[in-house]
Amino acid sequence: MPDRLTKLRGLMAQEGVDLVVLAPGAHMDWALGVRPHADERPVLAFITASHASFLIPVLEAESARNQTDLPFYTWADDTGPHKALTRLLSETGAETAQSLVLDEAMRADHAALVQDALPGAARSFTEATVGRLRMTKDAEEFTRLKDNARIADRAMQAAWAAMRPGMTETEVADVVAESFAAAGAAPLFRIIGTGGNGAYPHHHTGRTKLAMGDAVVMDIGAGKDGFSSDITRMAVIGAPPEGYAEIHAIVERAVQAAMAAARPGAKAHEVDDAARGVITEAGYGDYFVHRTGHGMGVEVHEPPWITATSQTPLEVGMVFSIEPGVYLPDRFGLRLEDIVMLRADGPEILSDLPRDVRVIDA
Amino acid sequence: MPDRLTKLRGLMAQEGVDLVVLAPGAHMDWALGVRPHADERPVLAFITASHASFLIPVLEAESARNQTDLPFYTWADDTGPHKALTRLLSETGAETAQSLVLDEAMRADHAALVQDALPGAARSFTEATVGRLRMTKDAEEFTRLKDNARIADRAMQAAWAAMRPGMTETEVADVVAESFAAAGAAPLFRIIGTGGNGAYPHHHTGRTKLAMGDAVVMDIGAGKDGFSSDITRMAVIGAPPEGYAEIHAIVERAVQAAMAAARPGAKAHEVDDAARGVITEAGYGDYFVHRTGHGMGVEVHEPPWITATSQTPLEVGMVFSIEPGVYLPDRFGLRLEDIVMLRADGPEILSDLPRDVRVIDA
Repeated sequence: MPDRLTKLRGLMAQEGVDLVVLAPGAHMDWALGVRPHADERPVLAFITASHASFLIPVLEAESARNQTDLPFYTWADDTGPHKALTRLLSETGAETAQSLVLDEAMRADHAALVQDALPGAARSFTEATVGRLRMTKDAEEFTRLKDNARIADRAMQAAWAAMRPGMTETEVADVVAESFAAAGAAPLFRIIGTGGNGAYPHHHTGRTKLAMGDAVVMDIGAGKDGFSSDITRMAVIGAPPEGYAEIHAIVERAVQAAMAAARPGAKAHEVDDAARGVITEAGYGDYFVHRTGHGMGVEVHEPPWITATSQTPLEVGMVFSIEPGVYLPDRFGLRLEDIVMLRADGPEILSDLPRDVRVIDA
Repeated sequence: MPDRLTKLRGLMAQEGVDLVVLAPGAHMDWALGVRPHADERPVLAFITASHASFLIPVLEAESARNQTDLPFYTWADDTGPHKALTRLLSETGAETAQSLVLDEAMRADHAALVQDALPGAARSFTEATVGRLRMTKDAEEFTRLKDNARIADRAMQAAWAAMRPGMTETEVADVVAESFAAAGAAPLFRIIGTGGNGAYPHHHTGRTKLAMGDAVVMDIGAGKDGFSSDITRMAVIGAPPEGYAEIHAIVERAVQAAMAAARPGAKAHEVDDAARGVITEAGYGDYFVHRTGHGMGVEVHEPPWITATSQTPLEVGMVFSIEPGVYLPDRFGLRLEDIVMLRADGPEILSDLPRDVRVIDA
């Protein structure tokens, strides 16, 4: 991770940030390669231009020592973290920080501990530092993302091969999970929304049975080698419901418009604008209730956010989803999602599966 | 949950709290019975003397509607949560809150969203409100905790029956997990620390093999019906290591001293003092590196904290662990843990397993 720390310090200097404080989770793992046990006891990494140190409970220090050689300021349950924090801030010079970046996923009480110790420091979150660096992926990261995407393609195909009218959503999800597990990937989510359930974008997969004439939203992902997959495809049981073909064509055009807008130098909102424009013009704007996409890397959801308001300039190496959808209450939902890596000439799709609807024979 | 909300409002009035804001997790589940999907999008519950409402992304609203009838202030990805938050604070009168309680487990960026909208409000966390109410359990909660404890007892016995020299820690943990799963409980943690590994209180269970003369720390827990178990017992492979019997006797005396100190009206630190006093007097104080215990309920770790500095008065109905330990680097660790519910005449132990060391025949 020394290379990432160097890059981070470069951005800190450029942005006038004196101190970055990270909590256990994706940012700490990415920047320092440390994944400590996280609970109500604060474990925090403090990064300045010259120092990187951990505030860590003595209980966790021995295990964490196997993951890093950085200095530890340990604290015990009986006295709490305050003294160790004061010593850390003093010995690393962080006590004079004027500009403080906090990990946005940090617990509020841990954030308060840091802010109360540095009352003069202006606080922001990581979007201009660690978050920005994490948005672009290198060749090795791309390889792992591509590997994950192939595993997800096979899990989707396994589900299609198993699906029959009368199966429950959960049974379909189990087939997906088994396929992921057989490939060495840890299943992360499996949204299987049949018929009217698909109209809830984050439907909780349940005991509803696949019925003839249902459209089925299938949004699946798993994690392997520190990265993950995320793909949404559509199936129909027997014949599609009324109006399905029209909506599928609209959403597919929205995907293609977003792909065309995703170019280095464009703002993230231009990608959202393109997808949303197609759907709105077709008269379904009120039924596209979420953003067009999200970045993906160590986390399934991470910057860049592909929203109507995001001013983030797209850069070569960014990896994000393009996933417009239309949700018709009590009828069906329809979402098509691909993960892309942005290249100089446009997005490269990670999945090899076409976005056509899969027809399940009855 | 109306009863809990009424109790919460009673405490809010008593403590002068105008507004409590909860994030997805144990507090929200306990107070309102709502478990929304949690990600980077803020989902927050706002509770005042007269209102209880949710700030929630439109994406989650339909699913969450199945869990509660409370008003929703929805927001969409394209505009973000600010307008909906402003409307919520205005319509519920929360905009004039002078004293604000935040869920300590809330993400730092979501906490900032609330605090930035209420710059004049003094902020504290939930220890005097939701956290305090959650500390005491009723008869129905006790029944579920007791059921979980019995399941953990059987998982511990299953591990003992399977253990042999040459088995790995992970293999022992797998036996525990299978026993939990067979009883319908979701395995939460299985710390199996053999020999020198046991000297790390939060050892990551791994491929080390059980060897003759090892002491083995076994700290296991699982969740069922919204509650969980947590128990630590000791085993030795063949014969105990040198010095084991002396340390086991000291830690057992520490457990008993803590049990004797745990009486309604005592301060939590008196329980810690009692256990720590026994171990310190025996000359091993430096090797007891953690608190004596933690509360347990919806979460495995929750208030009351049984630490050297906790001034929390113990009350009838509180449920917490008593788990002193001694950790001798490169030799072995030794921890004995029971969960108790405090009764008028002292603690009732949930487990039926004796705390004697279990000798595994070679």
